[in-house]
Amino acid sequence: MKPEAERIARAVSPALEEILGETFPVLDDGFVRVVDYMGNDASVVQAARVSYGAGTRKVSEDRGLIRYLLRHRHTTPFEMCELKLHVRVPMDAWRQWIRHRTASVNEYSTRYSVAIDAMQATQPGRWRTQAQQNKQGSGDPVDPDEGAALSAREAALHAEARATYRERLDKGVAREQARKDLPLCTYTEAYWKMDLHNLLHFLALRMDGHAQKEIRDYATVIGEEIVSRWVPLTWEAFLDYRFHATGLSRMESEILAAVGAGDPVKANAIAREAGWLEPGKNGLKAHRERGEFARKLKAWNLDVPWETD
Amino acid sequence: MKPEAERIARAVSPALEEILGETFPVLDDGFVRVVDYMGNDASVVQAARVSYGAGTRKVSEDRGLIRYLLRHRHTTPFEMCELKLHVRVPMDAWRQWIRHRTASVNEYSTRYSVAIDAMQATQPGRWRTQAQQNKQGSGDPVDPDEGAALSAREAALHAEARATYRERLDKGVAREQARKDLPLCTYTEAYWKMDLHNLLHFLALRMDGHAQKEIRDYATVIGEEIVSRWVPLTWEAFLDYRFHATGLSRMESEILAAVGAGDPVKANAIAREAGWLEPGKNGLKAHRERGEFARKLKAWNLDVPWETD
Amino acid sequence: MKPEAERIARAVSPALEEILGETFPVLDDGFVRVVDYMGNDASVVQAARVSYGAGTRKVSEDRGLIRYLLRHRHTTPFEMCELKLHVRVPMDAWRQWIRHRTASVNEYSTRYSVAIDAMQATQPGRWRTQAQQNKQGSGDPVDPDEGAALSAREAALHAEARATYRERLDKGVAREQARKDLPLCTYTEAYWKMDLHNLLHFLALRMDGHAQKEIRDYATVIGEEIVSRWVPLTWEAFLDYRFHATGLSRMESEILAAVGAGDPVKANAIAREAGWLEPGKNGLKAHRERGEFARKLKAWNLDVPWETD
Amino acid sequence: MKPEAERIARAVSPALEEILGETFPVLDDGFVRVVDYMGNDASVVQAARVSYGAGTRKVSEDRGLIRYLLRHRHTTPFEMCELKLHVRVPMDAWRQWIRHRTASVNEYSTRYSVAIDAMQATQPGRWRTQAQQNKQGSGDPVDPDEGAALSAREAALHAEARATYRERLDKGVAREQARKDLPLCTYTEAYWKMDLHNLLHFLALRMDGHAQKEIRDYATVIGEEIVSRWVPLTWEAFLDYRFHATGLSRMESEILAAVGAGDPVKANAIAREAGWLEPGKNGLKAHRERGEFARKLKAWNLDVPWETD
Repeated sequence: MKPEAERIARAVSPALEEILGETFPVLDDGFVRVVDYMGNDASVVQAARVSYGAGTRKVSEDRGLIRYLLRHRHTTPFEMCELKLHVRVPMDAWRQWIRHRTASVNEYSTRYSVAIDAMQATQPGRWRTQAQQNKQGSGDPVDPDEGAALSAREAALHAEARATYRERLDKGVAREQARKDLPLCTYTEAYWKMDLHNLLHFLALRMDGHAQKEIRDYATVIGEEIVSRWVPLTWEAFLDYRFHATGLSRMESEILAAVGAGDPVKANAIAREAGWLEPGKNGLKAHRERGEFARKLKAWNLDVPWETD
Repeated sequence: MKPEAERIARAVSPALEEILGETFPVLDDGFVRVVDYMGNDASVVQAARVSYGAGTRKVSEDRGLIRYLLRHRHTTPFEMCELKLHVRVPMDAWRQWIRHRTASVNEYSTRYSVAIDAMQATQPGRWRTQAQQNKQGSGDPVDPDEGAALSAREAALHAEARATYRERLDKGVAREQARKDLPLCTYTEAYWKMDLHNLLHFLALRMDGHAQKEIRDYATVIGEEIVSRWVPLTWEAFLDYRFHATGLSRMESEILAAVGAGDPVKANAIAREAGWLEPGKNGLKAHRERGEFARKLKAWNLDVPWETD
Repeated sequence: MKPEAERIARAVSPALEEILGETFPVLDDGFVRVVDYMGNDASVVQAARVSYGAGTRKVSEDRGLIRYLLRHRHTTPFEMCELKLHVRVPMDAWRQWIRHRTASVNEYSTRYSVAIDAMQATQPGRWRTQAQQNKQGSGDPVDPDEGAALSAREAALHAEARATYRERLDKGVAREQARKDLPLCTYTEAYWKMDLHNLLHFLALRMDGHAQKEIRDYATVIGEEIVSRWVPLTWEAFLDYRFHATGLSRMESEILAAVGAGDPVKANAIAREAGWLEPGKNGLKAHRERGEFARKLKAWNLDVPWETD
Repeated sequence: MKPEAERIARAVSPALEEILGETFPVLDDGFVRVVDYMGNDASVVQAARVSYGAGTRKVSEDRGLIRYLLRHRHTTPFEMCELKLHVRVPMDAWRQWIRHRTASVNEYSTRYSVAIDAMQATQPGRWRTQAQQNKQGSGDPVDPDEGAALSAREAALHAEARATYRERLDKGVAREQARKDLPLCTYTEAYWKMDLHNLLHFLALRMDGHAQKEIRDYATVIGEEIVSRWVPLTWEAFLDYRFHATGLSRMESEILAAVGAGDPVKANAIAREAGWLEPGKNGLKAHRERGEFARKLKAWNLDVPWETD
């Protein structure tokens, strides 16, 4: 624990230094760029070792320790690294983004300044239908001809909103009031800073397939282009132990044990007690949790112990 | 410190109970209502006394202790009270609201559900000009005839945005994408929960004259209609020690001492060293900090020691 | 979303009301008691429904929705409930407790008041040996005869520390300085308030077998005696989807799929690539992650595809 | 707002670079050293300008903008800078330190490792008496002869505690249990990271004369040796607008206006209404708030309008 040397230098991430300030485009007119950062993989290790003592040095090298920390959700050492981004995002995606309360944020103010003159435009092939199953998601693309009409109508509405905003400013209306009818997809910009632990949580939620496509595009760029360069060992461990990890509930674990023991009767009994096996018109009634577990079993090449699914 | 009685009841605020669930209208179609709460003035006192010990009981009764806590910024006892509101707010005001990161929030989701069919409409007499001094604020009202034209144009844009949104939904576009061109003033709803310490901070910032009128209207209702009933002693102390308090910087305090000593030469010397007295075309160059302090001196019926202001 | 009724009452948890203020003893002289609370299972449901819209009402009844939320880590609705405890804890356990930063805390101050005259005493049969495997944990009990000697020595040290503290106070030393040599196991008291989401996180970590026994005793009482009464549906879901849940990393999932397919060669290849199968003196070198997964496979009655473990 | 250049370098603080890793001693065996940092004064300015727009560039140079931000409590731009310290602190001071919940912390674990073999020792001349007025503070030094006896007794208790701890470890007691009777003044070490906004708040509270001397010593070193080098413009503004600032309550402001108007009758009326002027045996009853304001008036060379004080 004694300071090893009087004089030290800041932790550096060479691969991140390569792209400092570089603009990664997202959507039609957005971007993400790294403005500043603190720490690297070694900073995570250093913080973990102050907690766990010198003894850990013998048994684990850095990669192993980082993987151990992520595997066991020892999250505090990851808070020792910080990333500061400059982002340009449509306000409707930003509304989701800003819900992550652990960030530090300075956003472009349309009270002080005239709003950024850019609204997210949708290409004719990029309109999406409402998902059938997922009440909050998107499904197949809209028919391209319909899409062309939708895009034309979108452009007309943007022009109207822009003209109305301009007219208000020309007539002397206060900026803070004039902006009230800008469309939600108007671009904003911000400095956004977060520690690595909270950033991984943000990425786990926003890179996920259930996240809306627009914010998912940003999260994917932040993860794959930036975090992967900044802290490569942490990024690899995040993918292995979190992003591509699977969870099993108590019931799932018990059913899996019955399946492993070749006892489908017991497996069905557990599922029945959990309320998964209510009879419907044709076989079992649909049950989302049962369906999800059946998909897991199939992916593991194990037998699904009930008939439907 | 020993538990005084085995069985206790929850802390109650009788005046808040009177208005539980009641809708306080704000703006043209918004509201605030209390859904639930925890604690009252006595809860603040109880928490303070566990910290400061039984000794404080002798010298201070409840009101005195609450005022002492607020005066000395002993803020943790105020965290022991919680307020949960149901609010309906235009999204552009909500964008400011949500920047307070210490709240718990569940907002109406326009991914899951069709957006609320209400946009904030501006009466002809309610358009405001850009403030001259304050780059971020509003000044005098816009001329009413201009206002009528602005309101008509606003209504047309709302109709167009609404029709476009409806058309998208009718054509099967996903809700999460269809909403992208709704105006920022579209109403949203949320459950919003905060502890009393952070709520007072929110109110201090958002009831302030520099806050935008729309969110100020909400904050004023929350403060004057709700917090004043819920924790009347805390509310009174908040007004006396925070909302109507004045701060003096080191320089202001030193100049005040020179003014008090009847030594304008010294007062000017301090101001000069602070860079407040740079000569301009007619007397002194404008200086915002100097001007603010001059206004304080005048309010205290004390002489301003320099000529301009 | 429209307010259903003008007048409402606070959410109540009948079973928690039964034990409000009641003291649950922990360790030799500690306790936990509920001082106040806000919300119940229905408050979680209410908050979730404002986000997910009225549509969810049809398909899910309350229990199902709460289980869905916990299963998919939709955590914000659980923040709508708050619990305020009065606790009496030895300072060394409190040091771990206070690391949870999302709580509101008012602790008994030994600057203001004379320290609580109670130190945690260890019965002769309660001394624990250092765990062999787990560098941070405890193993078997210490031999009872040794234990008696240890307890006697502990009592002597407590007496000495108490006498020294008393002497300092008698000589007029400031309380804030006199306390400096109290043992870490001196009891303190605090009001401690946390929302249900963060409380479940606290319980998941502190009820876990890796947590130190002392704080685990407190967490277990909070969970089993208090949370189980307060929000029974949430508590049941917490046990099923979190406390008794199992996680599988990407590698574990891939090996499980190979095991399920009856392909031990492939399973070994994946494990080898993951660095799990380094040869040692007798069979494979010890590897903690491999060992943990082997235990999971055995619990599921599935074959471990490598020889050691 | 458009990125000015594709390639940028991290913000650097030259004077802080000079002392990176350097150990600043505090107390008899503690220290503070900077391990890493992010940002500098210019980072605060950069973040403020994204909010307030390019317009501010004309009127304010960096120093003026930083002072403006601190004067008006625009705190978010200060969150863009981070400081990571390695500290060695007695646990009783650390107990106060850790109450600041906005930090990231990794502390040396005495579950994993043998406790640091150092306890804070008090020199004979450093014992302090209990303050008469301030229930939580220290007053004059203890008589040196008494001090010598107190220090001898302290050394004996430390030796006894150390021997007991060693004996437990020798007998195989788990480290997590063996530590339970270490004195509160045993040193611990930690990495501690905080953003500049929250750090200034920490310093305002802990450099204050009401803070306990031990933690005040740490805070003073962090402020005067580290923050002053890191962000010199922010540090200067912090001293002028926060640390050496004075607050006036509503009542104080009103009384000051009456004093300024030469109207002691009105001043007394306001004070009387505020409950400050209750008659006692000799003149007025003691009243802390009144006394504090009287001291302010005297410091400003203004007349105190009532007799006592």
